[in-house]
Amino acid sequence: MTAAADEVRLARAYLMRVAEPPAVAVGELVENRGPVQAAALVRDGKCPPAARAETEARAHLDQAAQDLELAARSGARLVVPEDDEWPAWPLLSMWQAVRRGVKALAPPLGLWVRGSPPLADAVQPGVAVVGARACSGYGRHTATELARALVTQGIPVVSGAAHGIDAAAHRGALAGGGPTVAVLACGIDTAYPAGHGELLDRVAGLGAVVSEYAPGVPPARHRFLVRNRLIAALSDGTVVVEAGARSGSRNTAATAGALGKVVMAVPGPVDAATSVGCHELIRSAAATLVASTADVLETVGRFGEAHPGRPRPRRLTDSLGPEALRVHEALPARGGYSAERVAVDSGVPIARVRAVLPALELDGLSVRCEAGWRRGRKGAVDDEH
Amino acid sequence: MTAAADEVRLARAYLMRVAEPPAVAVGELVENRGPVQAAALVRDGKCPPAARAETEARAHLDQAAQDLELAARSGARLVVPEDDEWPAWPLLSMWQAVRRGVKALAPPLGLWVRGSPPLADAVQPGVAVVGARACSGYGRHTATELARALVTQGIPVVSGAAHGIDAAAHRGALAGGGPTVAVLACGIDTAYPAGHGELLDRVAGLGAVVSEYAPGVPPARHRFLVRNRLIAALSDGTVVVEAGARSGSRNTAATAGALGKVVMAVPGPVDAATSVGCHELIRSAAATLVASTADVLETVGRFGEAHPGRPRPRRLTDSLGPEALRVHEALPARGGYSAERVAVDSGVPIARVRAVLPALELDGLSVRCEAGWRRGRKGAVDDEH
Repeated sequence: MTAAADEVRLARAYLMRVAEPPAVAVGELVENRGPVQAAALVRDGKCPPAARAETEARAHLDQAAQDLELAARSGARLVVPEDDEWPAWPLLSMWQAVRRGVKALAPPLGLWVRGSPPLADAVQPGVAVVGARACSGYGRHTATELARALVTQGIPVVSGAAHGIDAAAHRGALAGGGPTVAVLACGIDTAYPAGHGELLDRVAGLGAVVSEYAPGVPPARHRFLVRNRLIAALSDGTVVVEAGARSGSRNTAATAGALGKVVMAVPGPVDAATSVGCHELIRSAAATLVASTADVLETVGRFGEAHPGRPRPRRLTDSLGPEALRVHEALPARGGYSAERVAVDSGVPIARVRAVLPALELDGLSVRCEAGWRRGRKGAVDDEH
Repeated sequence: MTAAADEVRLARAYLMRVAEPPAVAVGELVENRGPVQAAALVRDGKCPPAARAETEARAHLDQAAQDLELAARSGARLVVPEDDEWPAWPLLSMWQAVRRGVKALAPPLGLWVRGSPPLADAVQPGVAVVGARACSGYGRHTATELARALVTQGIPVVSGAAHGIDAAAHRGALAGGGPTVAVLACGIDTAYPAGHGELLDRVAGLGAVVSEYAPGVPPARHRFLVRNRLIAALSDGTVVVEAGARSGSRNTAATAGALGKVVMAVPGPVDAATSVGCHELIRSAAATLVASTADVLETVGRFGEAHPGRPRPRRLTDSLGPEALRVHEALPARGGYSAERVAVDSGVPIARVRAVLPALELDGLSVRCEAGWRRGRKGAVDDEH
């Protein structure tokens, strides 16, 4: 496995401390000049104006070695695009979005990572399971079971480690044996939200905790929105399990859509405020309804991996044509009718009735008796709707 | 108001007794030759082969006057296309379907009706609310409340008078003051299902009970499917409230779609078997998700009549651009930071920070203090997703 040179890692660590993500101009500078030269230009204030605007406020914070040291102390490493384990394939969509002019979806300059599997392996072929912090018991249960089933199918579960649906998704994935990936909106060394330290340790144990923020950077509202683009980008598809009327999950869903990823939402009772956002996403065709793990796998295009579809219950009469069905329906359950009587009751011409009745008999759907014909034991009348 | 001549009504009553619906060839014969001549041709066995096949078995049942008398005894009348009260507009879609080759959607030759309002007024502009007989308490409640709200908005509710969702829809509409329309799969004088006699009387009191089957014709499975096309045709759109995996509501929905009507489905918990059919309809894009009466009105194109949309909760910070949001987020809740510190923490250039802070102050989002700047009282950090 190939790893980046130290100077490359130091240069990217510096730029990640200096530029608040998403930093499209710095990203383009790095693409054009390489990370080492880009870092030097930023440090010296000699970069183009757009990159300068993105870095000016913090260009003096030259603490890359210190950040690598801080990260290492909390068991984290910096993964950069020059490393083999960089998840280049899922993140490709971010550059494609930038090329289409969506600069807010610029890719990360690197990713701080806690967890032993190579990052690319931990995230691929992942599905994001996200949703409201203020979730219901129904949402928590659904997220847990969905995540557990996904990892059982070999699909890593990506989420945001927040309270509510996110935590349920991570926990379900851990219960299923992982892997699961938590993308943070703060430094890799910050246990946020408070009380999720142990959960994050377990996530790191079976998958990866990931952040594009330098060590010590606190969470902030705009960072959650920026982080959401990474959750979407690192996954093949995003499932919103519960979302209120103005939930940020809608933002994740919109981002996933803009990245060309599959967006899915789980329905719920129409009187539950926690499902309003999901219903709006589905209703507006921004998301595809998913009601089961099989639905999720089918939607992200993993037909082969899906459980076989629920078998539809079949009735013997399902295979009958309309005429035979009418004849069958006209037969009495007890006693017997003449073929003429069946013709009148069913409205099917007598010649056809005489042909259909013996055919039904072969399938056990009609019985010849002294009084004429009656219905066979197979094929009962059922729910009319 | 113009009513059809007696001989026209007698001719159609005869044809309706003789031809099992949908009878597309008889319908076309009536269109071409008029009902009186068409009836004579059928009676004498001199009609074209297709119409003959549809009538042969019962052509001898010449009991039109008797059927009109039977119907009158149960308070019903025969409404025919020659009457002013014929719902010509909603049923137009049926001839259009026939022209496209979907013969199973042929229109009725007439409609037996119980209820005082003119039929066209009772059904228009109606919405069908249908679903499983074996429904849940959730489905029953949702159907009741939806129907009640629809009639309050002046929308008649059409359904099939079955147990479960259908009955709940009629009851909700009655509770809201009607009108509601029940379309039967048996003779107008048959109280089916047993125990719904009083419900049907109340429906007839505030709207209409409707059937294309001659008096005394018993319900049969194929008649439910045929009847479902009338429920769909008489409405501008069909809402499926609950449906199991192989529910006939899917048939109603498919029919509504084939008639060019709007198809809608109500979601529910993903672990409820009673919502599986609805979820499949939505997931396959055969139906639009509706989670509220406003959704239904919007979907059938009654924007003007809909309740105003749920007002979205707004935060003051929602109107901030990304830069101002980053500055705002970097402000401490207590104490104060210098503009320089805010620039470093937010990553926004110092010149822009100096411009943004006073602008935030005008909105009450930042406060100038001895130590520098802190966050204003308005605009709290909230749910991150």
